[in-house]
Amino acid sequence: MSESNTRFPEMPVFEPGSVWLVGAGPGDPGLLSLLAFHALSQADDIVYDALVGDGILALAGTGAVLHHAGKRGGKPSAKQADITEKLIDLANSGRKVLRLKGGDPFVFGRGGEEALALAAAGVPFRLVPGITAAVAGLAYAGIPITDRCVNSAVTFITGHEAGGGPPEGLDWPALASGAPVLILYMALKHLAWMAERLIGAGLDPDTPVVLISKATTEDQKIVETHLSAAAADAAAAGIEAPAIVAIGDVVELRAALDPSATPQARARAVLEVRRKRDAG
Amino acid sequence: MSESNTRFPEMPVFEPGSVWLVGAGPGDPGLLSLLAFHALSQADDIVYDALVGDGILALAGTGAVLHHAGKRGGKPSAKQADITEKLIDLANSGRKVLRLKGGDPFVFGRGGEEALALAAAGVPFRLVPGITAAVAGLAYAGIPITDRCVNSAVTFITGHEAGGGPPEGLDWPALASGAPVLILYMALKHLAWMAERLIGAGLDPDTPVVLISKATTEDQKIVETHLSAAAADAAAAGIEAPAIVAIGDVVELRAALDPSATPQARARAVLEVRRKRDAG
Repeated sequence: MSESNTRFPEMPVFEPGSVWLVGAGPGDPGLLSLLAFHALSQADDIVYDALVGDGILALAGTGAVLHHAGKRGGKPSAKQADITEKLIDLANSGRKVLRLKGGDPFVFGRGGEEALALAAAGVPFRLVPGITAAVAGLAYAGIPITDRCVNSAVTFITGHEAGGGPPEGLDWPALASGAPVLILYMALKHLAWMAERLIGAGLDPDTPVVLISKATTEDQKIVETHLSAAAADAAAAGIEAPAIVAIGDVVELRAALDPSATPQARARAVLEVRRKRDAG
Repeated sequence: MSESNTRFPEMPVFEPGSVWLVGAGPGDPGLLSLLAFHALSQADDIVYDALVGDGILALAGTGAVLHHAGKRGGKPSAKQADITEKLIDLANSGRKVLRLKGGDPFVFGRGGEEALALAAAGVPFRLVPGITAAVAGLAYAGIPITDRCVNSAVTFITGHEAGGGPPEGLDWPALASGAPVLILYMALKHLAWMAERLIGAGLDPDTPVVLISKATTEDQKIVETHLSAAAADAAAAGIEAPAIVAIGDVVELRAALDPSATPQARARAVLEVRRKRDAG
């Protein structure tokens, strides 16, 4: 760093023969944690997902071996068992192994499964959370995921179950009546199915929706729509995975907080938000 | 840093006259984002919450002015309007202003309200998410917040509404039937009230619960219990704010992933988890 008076805080030792299971955040290297940055510089081997971008991998130490273990809907990818076997083999050969996953490893990221496999094999590990895609993607889009005037609760839902089908095991009427803001992860494939369930359970078809593709990266794409049109608008706009979908009135705050808008446009939008709240 | 081959990635310029509204994560300085670390080193003024600890404030540049704007239940604290007025005044006098909040500013953190006030005043700002307490606290405790065998959804709920009372505006039966894992923020004060609502709505009184106080800090305290005993056990164990509460079967994975257990104890616990899953 250029700031001579700022010291990097002391970090835990990355022990040879251990695995650090680390969330890289959704894309922007600036959202890496200091622990993740430290692990990148220290690791002998880095086993990374398709969702971890080049800007982050560029921070690896020069001697590190990079292993791609991409998993992405519809494309050929390493099998989960092969990934955990590789982690265990590398650790058992005395390497410092960084398992780097996009977003947070434990929010629909299968990090728990990988950690269980490491635990079963007796491999020492450290779990390092990351900034999950929904929280970061909404913030970068200018949408607070909670607002005291809108929601005292928010529900995160995965858009497909283990086998790849829609999440049929969930109680959709309860989800529709529970938290006033719903966030769908990996939602594109079954978006029409889920929107239909929510509308069928009584959610207003005009409920505001935002679709965010490749959140916080240079390729980020944002589409504002409403619940009944969300799936069609996602297809029409060419929204690609990975994408998150947020459903609820917090989406309307974007006009006031959009970082790509001018200060003047934002100030006018705040007045409109306040006018509506005073009227409501 | 000691690693000569690792460069700190390029960061956006912190413009004088602007406010960066930044999440500091729940406590461990290692969970700061690179953007937050950069902002600490660059800011002229840092307006921070009670939840931001000394280990993080120690990373401020030597010339930075620190402003305490603590807000904590029951203790005297700066009023929200005074905080936003200070942010606006500092920015308008040409300072680089860092507003640093514990956890993520937008997950029950009132970051949206502060951003709206900045937008209304025409002050340029940047929103930088942080790692929210529940995700990090559970990971540090050895609990994945989602697991494919347990939950395709998770709901975050705030433990008190704007006026300080319990969250009466929510549909508790729907919350109880919706996501199989529930996370309560700022939950201590009304924990008995909430547990009663959930049990009344049909949630098993024996549902596993973990209470995590001061997550990811040196003072972190973890209590495992079950839903009907949670409030009494929190009081008996002297659990203090800030605390998060997780309710659901993912809590049982802790025995297998607890970082404070031995590798041998974890390996045995994984076998037990797998035995129960095969039996179920």
